[in-house]
Amino acid sequence: MTKTKLIPRTDQAYETPMLIKHLVAQSLKYEPQREIVYRDLFRMTYVDFNRRVRQLANVLTNLGVGPGDTVAVFDWDSHRYLECFFGVTSLGAILHTINVRLSPAQILYTMNHAEDRIVLIHEDFLPILQGIKGQLTTVSQFVLISDKVYTDSPEVAVPDGFEGEYERLLKEASDQFDFPDFDENTWATTFYTTGTTGQPKGVYFSHRQLFMHTMGLLSYVVGYEAVPFRSAADVYMPITPMFHVHAWGFPFLATMLSVKQVYPGRYEPEMLLRLLLKEGVTLSHCVPTILNMLVTSPVAKQVDLSRWKVIIGGSALTKGLARAALELNISVYAGYGMSETAPVLTITYLNDQEKPLPINEQVELRARAGRIAPFVDLRLVDENGNDVPHDGQSLGEVVVHAPWLTQGYYKEPERSAELWRDGWLHTGDVATITPDNWLQIADRTKDVIKTGGEWISSLEIEDLLSQTVGVAEAAVVGLPDDKWGERPHALIVRKPDAAEVTADQIRTSLLEKVQRGELNKWYVPDRIVFVPEIPKTSVGKIDKKKIRSEMKDLILGISA
Amino acid sequence: MTKTKLIPRTDQAYETPMLIKHLVAQSLKYEPQREIVYRDLFRMTYVDFNRRVRQLANVLTNLGVGPGDTVAVFDWDSHRYLECFFGVTSLGAILHTINVRLSPAQILYTMNHAEDRIVLIHEDFLPILQGIKGQLTTVSQFVLISDKVYTDSPEVAVPDGFEGEYERLLKEASDQFDFPDFDENTWATTFYTTGTTGQPKGVYFSHRQLFMHTMGLLSYVVGYEAVPFRSAADVYMPITPMFHVHAWGFPFLATMLSVKQVYPGRYEPEMLLRLLLKEGVTLSHCVPTILNMLVTSPVAKQVDLSRWKVIIGGSALTKGLARAALELNISVYAGYGMSETAPVLTITYLNDQEKPLPINEQVELRARAGRIAPFVDLRLVDENGNDVPHDGQSLGEVVVHAPWLTQGYYKEPERSAELWRDGWLHTGDVATITPDNWLQIADRTKDVIKTGGEWISSLEIEDLLSQTVGVAEAAVVGLPDDKWGERPHALIVRKPDAAEVTADQIRTSLLEKVQRGELNKWYVPDRIVFVPEIPKTSVGKIDKKKIRSEMKDLILGISA
Repeated sequence: MTKTKLIPRTDQAYETPMLIKHLVAQSLKYEPQREIVYRDLFRMTYVDFNRRVRQLANVLTNLGVGPGDTVAVFDWDSHRYLECFFGVTSLGAILHTINVRLSPAQILYTMNHAEDRIVLIHEDFLPILQGIKGQLTTVSQFVLISDKVYTDSPEVAVPDGFEGEYERLLKEASDQFDFPDFDENTWATTFYTTGTTGQPKGVYFSHRQLFMHTMGLLSYVVGYEAVPFRSAADVYMPITPMFHVHAWGFPFLATMLSVKQVYPGRYEPEMLLRLLLKEGVTLSHCVPTILNMLVTSPVAKQVDLSRWKVIIGGSALTKGLARAALELNISVYAGYGMSETAPVLTITYLNDQEKPLPINEQVELRARAGRIAPFVDLRLVDENGNDVPHDGQSLGEVVVHAPWLTQGYYKEPERSAELWRDGWLHTGDVATITPDNWLQIADRTKDVIKTGGEWISSLEIEDLLSQTVGVAEAAVVGLPDDKWGERPHALIVRKPDAAEVTADQIRTSLLEKVQRGELNKWYVPDRIVFVPEIPKTSVGKIDKKKIRSEMKDLILGISA
Repeated sequence: MTKTKLIPRTDQAYETPMLIKHLVAQSLKYEPQREIVYRDLFRMTYVDFNRRVRQLANVLTNLGVGPGDTVAVFDWDSHRYLECFFGVTSLGAILHTINVRLSPAQILYTMNHAEDRIVLIHEDFLPILQGIKGQLTTVSQFVLISDKVYTDSPEVAVPDGFEGEYERLLKEASDQFDFPDFDENTWATTFYTTGTTGQPKGVYFSHRQLFMHTMGLLSYVVGYEAVPFRSAADVYMPITPMFHVHAWGFPFLATMLSVKQVYPGRYEPEMLLRLLLKEGVTLSHCVPTILNMLVTSPVAKQVDLSRWKVIIGGSALTKGLARAALELNISVYAGYGMSETAPVLTITYLNDQEKPLPINEQVELRARAGRIAPFVDLRLVDENGNDVPHDGQSLGEVVVHAPWLTQGYYKEPERSAELWRDGWLHTGDVATITPDNWLQIADRTKDVIKTGGEWISSLEIEDLLSQTVGVAEAAVVGLPDDKWGERPHALIVRKPDAAEVTADQIRTSLLEKVQRGELNKWYVPDRIVFVPEIPKTSVGKIDKKKIRSEMKDLILGISA
């Protein structure tokens, strides 16, 4: 492409860089009177918000924080976090959103690894800090965050050695601040994600990447009638922690469009429902557990949630939950992504032909992982990196190109190279893609069973087994096989009232499905072993790694 | 800013460049079955469109056109032009949209200046080509475009020396083409704009700039309830020539969102109205003349245009026209921009507080030039480059930063430096800006009258004079004055029945306004001179340059 005629990049003014400050600047152009709300404690207009973002920049600058410094935040979902999204990054500093669900030891590791310089911390998290403070190697300053300032205690007690309390410091600072121009590839944010092994890994994003992620979400919402952000009546409330991929990036979009925003703090069902109704929330996103908690709440049946749209991610949206939500007139969508991908890779989009479908058929579509998002290029590959067809049937690992992917894990060259092998980000998820761009996740790469040149989803067999008489719970793993490479094997926990169920009965029930043409023969596990309980990880997922390593002999030593 | 932490730019895959090919790729993701329509001659889905864009790329590649080559197009507004927007640029070649309204000599100049290599030309423009063909210095190939292929003459006669006819060549080409990746700063398009002096000037835009212009329009439409692009019912039909700043950039957005598009060819009122109704058009943009032609058409009063939104640019939207459109239930908006700015700088946006206003007050707002567009940074400066307050009163020249401004005029370093003096693009327009971001254009810089440290809009005095008894037409210019720098002077054409009106009477009527506090004293022209007619330019505008140079002695020699 050497012949291509370039318009040279220069330092001239016509090179407007894509910076986060340009997103927040839009919020004053059209609807500066719309509001940002924090629980029932605090509310302000976008005019106030823009002032506070500048006050925060002055507070940090006065404390000596400048471009390239890292600012750590421990907070519940709040307007303060939103102020940090814009105020810290637009200064040229890096925002480290602390994953408060990690263990104190892991939090300590991430803070030293990220080289945090200053910490903004909500009083609820002070006990965590207390335990690790002595081992922090780079932090030199602390700022207290307190909710009490909004109610009866405007003068909260600030711990010794702290610079002050957030609200008080803002109040004392000037609201004039000219955010500088700098390279759009400047590092803006970082946070840590955990795997099953090793220390948490730091992903990181530039101004350009977060800007483009916002444009991707924007292209999605404008194309989709059912998703809001269009009028004075639209109200956004995230129910995904702001430390986790910046609440999936939506706060950037909501701010840019000056949509009314509501931040709920902690996730107490009663408060969430109250805010939903009182503030007229029309768009949220959350994990399935939260939606389940809300739709099964007795209050949900007494109120009108028909204006509420909710995007589900983190885990699969089951058909049952999709149906339950639709029956309450809640518009429910699925999304798929990961910390490494900023995160959005897919979101449900029902097109002109699909929108009129009856609920039963919509449930099938809505329980998929969604359609490939704007500007995302998503392929399926086999073990050798060859393309797998997008036919809705063939399984392959999801690999991706997009303008908003982490370049790797901070200071982890080997894990980074593994993530980006062959020049594509490897998600570690195995999926199918239909010809019309629907993604369906089938398994994790490490759990998929490779048998006779075919990939089998362990989750799909588990799903079948769990519908079989007498089965309380099932775990399926692949174990080495001389002839086929790998073969599936199942661990079964019997239902309390089904002590007499045998492996042969379960096998027969699967073979009947094979005979009816509902199942491929090679999906039937070689061995079916009954166990009193299935090994789980600390977050309650089936620990297939442990099963494969520690229970291999047990499984293979007992014939079915 | 040396301390800022950069995420290095590399050639790795995580550096997704902003290319036009990524815009068209979105059109297949969600609504590939929506249509693109050309008059009543041709229609296709986005699936077909994507195939044809690739066929075009193959046709051009087979003809030896590659990255860095310039492709000139002469066509009416059509699907073919849209195919060139994407097919030519995604190849890495440069699209030169020929301004068919220029004189043949000017067209010849632009084609040689732009170094066009190949020409795609509609048969209606062959007579122009005939006259200049012998003097083209860089063109080596020609392709014929004909509308006859869609009706009764699938085999049109191709002139000697031509490579073939567009439809036929597409049909014979493969629809497989992998558009390459290249630097987002690659030159994508060029076209020529005319001033009052000198040869036409070539402006040029990169892939990144056109991508960002599309994002700016997108941010605008999503924020604005009244502008469509949201559902299956939305239909876009430009009525601004595609050669002129790519129909204001909207075709890029419409394609990205797979909105149904209608291209009307020539601007025949009957055809325009027919397409508006038959195809259910909901969004257009045009110059005031076209809207006026449509709203005054007898048919307009018989049909329902209440779903139609129209953005007016090119010249000011008058209050009269705004009211006439609103009374037909047409939602009318103004926009402001220029060829150098790709073009959008402002568009009307009525916010939550303004939307409920009665028509009379809306007319006042809608007749302004609009609000500052997303990602556009717009300032007013005085003659010394100092900021003028955005108070809705103070006049200053509009200077601008935005991610989509031409870096200059091609091969014109002096005119480019003049355009970009002080690091801001100088529009040459004098305006006011309200504190809530409304822009109101007052004059051209060269026509504004600088008197006693104040700027006076010559257009404002002309407007006042034209409302004075006996005045048929007025022209106001500034002429040098020892004491005040400049002073306003007026040329007046009397109404046929007002031969007795005197300069004193007119002056008195203005002074009465001064006494009532409606006018500043220094707005009253020093001299008022009656003339039989006012000098005009070839496009019918008042030729103030000529008045200042050739009529100066006449004006100053006669006392009022």
